[in-house]
Amino acid sequence: MTPGILPGDAATPGIISDPGTIRAAVVAARAAGRSIGFVPTMGALHAGHASLAARAGNECDDVVVSIFVNPTQFGAGEDFDRYPRRLADDCRLLGEHGVRWVFAPEARMIYPPGDATRVVVDGPARRFEGRIRPGHFEGVATVVCRLFNAVPADVAYFGAKDWQQTVVVRRMVEDLGLPIWISVCPTIREPDGLAMSSRNAYLSAAERRQAVGLHESLELAEKLWTAGEPVDSIEGAMRAAIEAREIRVDYAAVVDPDSLAPLATSGGPAVALVAGRLGGTRLIDNRILAARG
Amino acid sequence: MTPGILPGDAATPGIISDPGTIRAAVVAARAAGRSIGFVPTMGALHAGHASLAARAGNECDDVVVSIFVNPTQFGAGEDFDRYPRRLADDCRLLGEHGVRWVFAPEARMIYPPGDATRVVVDGPARRFEGRIRPGHFEGVATVVCRLFNAVPADVAYFGAKDWQQTVVVRRMVEDLGLPIWISVCPTIREPDGLAMSSRNAYLSAAERRQAVGLHESLELAEKLWTAGEPVDSIEGAMRAAIEAREIRVDYAAVVDPDSLAPLATSGGPAVALVAGRLGGTRLIDNRILAARG
Repeated sequence: MTPGILPGDAATPGIISDPGTIRAAVVAARAAGRSIGFVPTMGALHAGHASLAARAGNECDDVVVSIFVNPTQFGAGEDFDRYPRRLADDCRLLGEHGVRWVFAPEARMIYPPGDATRVVVDGPARRFEGRIRPGHFEGVATVVCRLFNAVPADVAYFGAKDWQQTVVVRRMVEDLGLPIWISVCPTIREPDGLAMSSRNAYLSAAERRQAVGLHESLELAEKLWTAGEPVDSIEGAMRAAIEAREIRVDYAAVVDPDSLAPLATSGGPAVALVAGRLGGTRLIDNRILAARG
Repeated sequence: MTPGILPGDAATPGIISDPGTIRAAVVAARAAGRSIGFVPTMGALHAGHASLAARAGNECDDVVVSIFVNPTQFGAGEDFDRYPRRLADDCRLLGEHGVRWVFAPEARMIYPPGDATRVVVDGPARRFEGRIRPGHFEGVATVVCRLFNAVPADVAYFGAKDWQQTVVVRRMVEDLGLPIWISVCPTIREPDGLAMSSRNAYLSAAERRQAVGLHESLELAEKLWTAGEPVDSIEGAMRAAIEAREIRVDYAAVVDPDSLAPLATSGGPAVALVAGRLGGTRLIDNRILAARG
């Protein structure tokens, strides 16, 4: 039995907490010619995460899922303390998807004593979520860089639902020359269109019904975009659609999908980004808008 | 012939400019069971660099030396433009030391278009050189992180002469979990004790004679340290010894060798750090002081 690994069985993957141990396991598997897919998560897994694990399993020989509620990407007064944690349930779900290893480190293993290093991304990380949640993407880039060193996989899978996160991670990977491929996978939705999110669990029954407003605004954005409407009128309509559900709008924007800057031409491609608050819960969503005429 | 590699011969190593090419070469060599030593430099090589390459060659199967004058670690008004560049001479020297590959990237290969990512180290990077040269260690940490991704060696060799740099690099490697061992190697000195540095070439004949003042101050520091003198009196004596050679003192300090903070106990171990200016040239040096009584 490899030290530090709780062995898995047919139903549950092995749980590894030590970065050196998961790294050694991944390096050995790759040396044996196996391809490795990696899904970094904060746990509280739902069908969106499951779809990433399934995709990784289809494309790679072995799949690693990390579960780590990363303190540095939460701001003061945010929901770090109440963020849902349910490792046992998560492992059971991952076992059903053939995941080989769950990497669930303690914070001190990712942030060692005396830790003084941060990965800071400028540009696309300064807009939208970066403006509303100062330090958030610094925490994301820092933890993802560390996770990629612990899990030197061939491919890492991220959900498109956190679009700006995928932009920031791809920027960091290119800039630092990290040897990993980033695969951005489709958002998984509830039957009414609400994007799957661990934070949906915070919503009351009434808020849950209102929450569809974000998705409705993106449906509208796509319709208006395809009809050739100008960006500012689309953004106004998105905002109105969100507010019609009594969601407080943080932003509703149509921007360049890579830089997240205003569109250079009205033809796109573009991404429609929305964020809003329902009670104490922040929700985000987005939709890619294909280049138009 | 491997694309992107100018083949070496008995006397000169192959020169590679593309990060992907050197990475593939290193990965292939390691997969074949060879150990790789890496010496990151800014070129203008001298006996200090040669000693690092020789040490790497003694300890590893293959040696990579990078030559890259990193723009981001120079501040405005510093010597980036006049920093000596002599790739052909450098390669000849490295050939004599059995170096297998020289990695000499262009700036756009290390800093791709749209680059927005920096590695920022706090703590020990904020003191001494970090205070006098704002942004310097951010540039160092950023380029070293990128170089380590391009050259995934077993061991990287750094000269002790840039002591604070070795502290910052070791801090970053531990914090980010970079899978490389940092070997800090002894400073190589001229016969009069002046630490070898590419910047010594800037000195006039008169300045060259004065420059020994830094080394003299460290000799004195060691004597006083061993004699049990208190730190503030040692620092005063160091400063006086440097000024006696008409060098303007930037700092002269005895501090903790890992944190570079004031010593917690008078017993050490410690590092004596000095920096001064001679005309337009900045010189630095240091000495490790073993724990006393």
